[in-house]
Amino acid sequence: MSQLRIISETSEGFVKEMRFDLEVDGEIVPGILWTPQGASGSRPLVLFGHGGRQHKRVDNILRSARDLVVTEHYAVLAIDGPGHGDRAPQPASDNGDTPRTNMTAEWQAVITEVQKLGYVGEGPIGYWGVSMGTRFGVPLVAKEPRIRAAILGLFGLFDEGLTEESGFGQAAASITVPLMFVYQSSDELMKLENGIRLYDAFGSKEKSMHINPGGHTGIPVSERETWKPFFVNHLGKARLSN
Amino acid sequence: MSQLRIISETSEGFVKEMRFDLEVDGEIVPGILWTPQGASGSRPLVLFGHGGRQHKRVDNILRSARDLVVTEHYAVLAIDGPGHGDRAPQPASDNGDTPRTNMTAEWQAVITEVQKLGYVGEGPIGYWGVSMGTRFGVPLVAKEPRIRAAILGLFGLFDEGLTEESGFGQAAASITVPLMFVYQSSDELMKLENGIRLYDAFGSKEKSMHINPGGHTGIPVSERETWKPFFVNHLGKARLSN
Repeated sequence: MSQLRIISETSEGFVKEMRFDLEVDGEIVPGILWTPQGASGSRPLVLFGHGGRQHKRVDNILRSARDLVVTEHYAVLAIDGPGHGDRAPQPASDNGDTPRTNMTAEWQAVITEVQKLGYVGEGPIGYWGVSMGTRFGVPLVAKEPRIRAAILGLFGLFDEGLTEESGFGQAAASITVPLMFVYQSSDELMKLENGIRLYDAFGSKEKSMHINPGGHTGIPVSERETWKPFFVNHLGKARLSN
Repeated sequence: MSQLRIISETSEGFVKEMRFDLEVDGEIVPGILWTPQGASGSRPLVLFGHGGRQHKRVDNILRSARDLVVTEHYAVLAIDGPGHGDRAPQPASDNGDTPRTNMTAEWQAVITEVQKLGYVGEGPIGYWGVSMGTRFGVPLVAKEPRIRAAILGLFGLFDEGLTEESGFGQAAASITVPLMFVYQSSDELMKLENGIRLYDAFGSKEKSMHINPGGHTGIPVSERETWKPFFVNHLGKARLSN
């Protein structure tokens, strides 16, 4: 039986939205699960890792989640990152960096509980997350064998700081699933050369780096439109009842 | 009436293949036009510019041409580049470079004659060409307003040599149509930094650079599969009879 503590269940159109908490290593992790109304049996699950200063129900995640549920009958899961969304702010470290928790363990615990639900089940899993969603996504995708494909981006590999301290490059190198890696050529937060270093570091045979014009928040619609086909290509089709 | 000199017309399955010659400024330009059997009325036309040491009917062009004709009812056109295919070899220049002809004028003349055919007509035009197909494609796409979208790649912008002498950078800057620009991260003929310079130089607002692993001839299937949707997205759907 699932250990999720259900906070609310609402429906809008074809989409059921369940808010929950799960305690992981003493931390309360708040999450949302989107699934098709009336679904039964297992289906692909896509995880969305939000960006810095965002939260699990930020506009772009909500829109993608609803689209994957309505058009593909997928399940979609998002959790708040440490210090974000419904998680109590934690004392900032000296350098103003995001507080460190083990978000990989948090994702893994939530996945396990969500997959106990009969209408989610143990289907293949995809991960989507750019910027902070890649910072926390790379260690997760590296460690979690249930994840079969990932879309990452807007984050780089550096000689020091955020990525070096945590073995980020080694984690990237140990990833072998198909990857799409998106980048913005005029990103005001990330240099292209650091993005290329991270792309080069990934161990995946199938990895494609997509560079588009514009700044950090300007990923164009033409690029966003490739994400759903990427997941369907790698995670497969779902049926409402299985 | 079209000035094309028809050499042969053959059919295989749904695909009609017409070989022709056209004289342009004293040069005989050999080409192939692929169209759907029984087509009438105008339809999108995709131009294929082959690579170095290749020709207008090289395997990858023939496969893409037949696919666009069969599944999308498009017309597809390819011509031999200077010194390639059925064109008599020309004396090599001192540096062994490809002989120079005005391939832009040749493409433009062939397009005009092909579009006089009732079953091709004056629909929107796309261009596909990587490596040498980009070297000759950039000036063409820059100059020819009938071209509405292009897939280019495997070629860069350099400080000297092939690209500088011909105003290549300026041509790239004057291109404004949607572009896909493909590159290989371990290309043995082209450095990634030169590719990024060319990508940056393009004037198009909508331009996406796709980097994949492997060498010059190793563009993966997952990348090739994006080309047809790109053209259909920008050139539109066709019907067999219009």
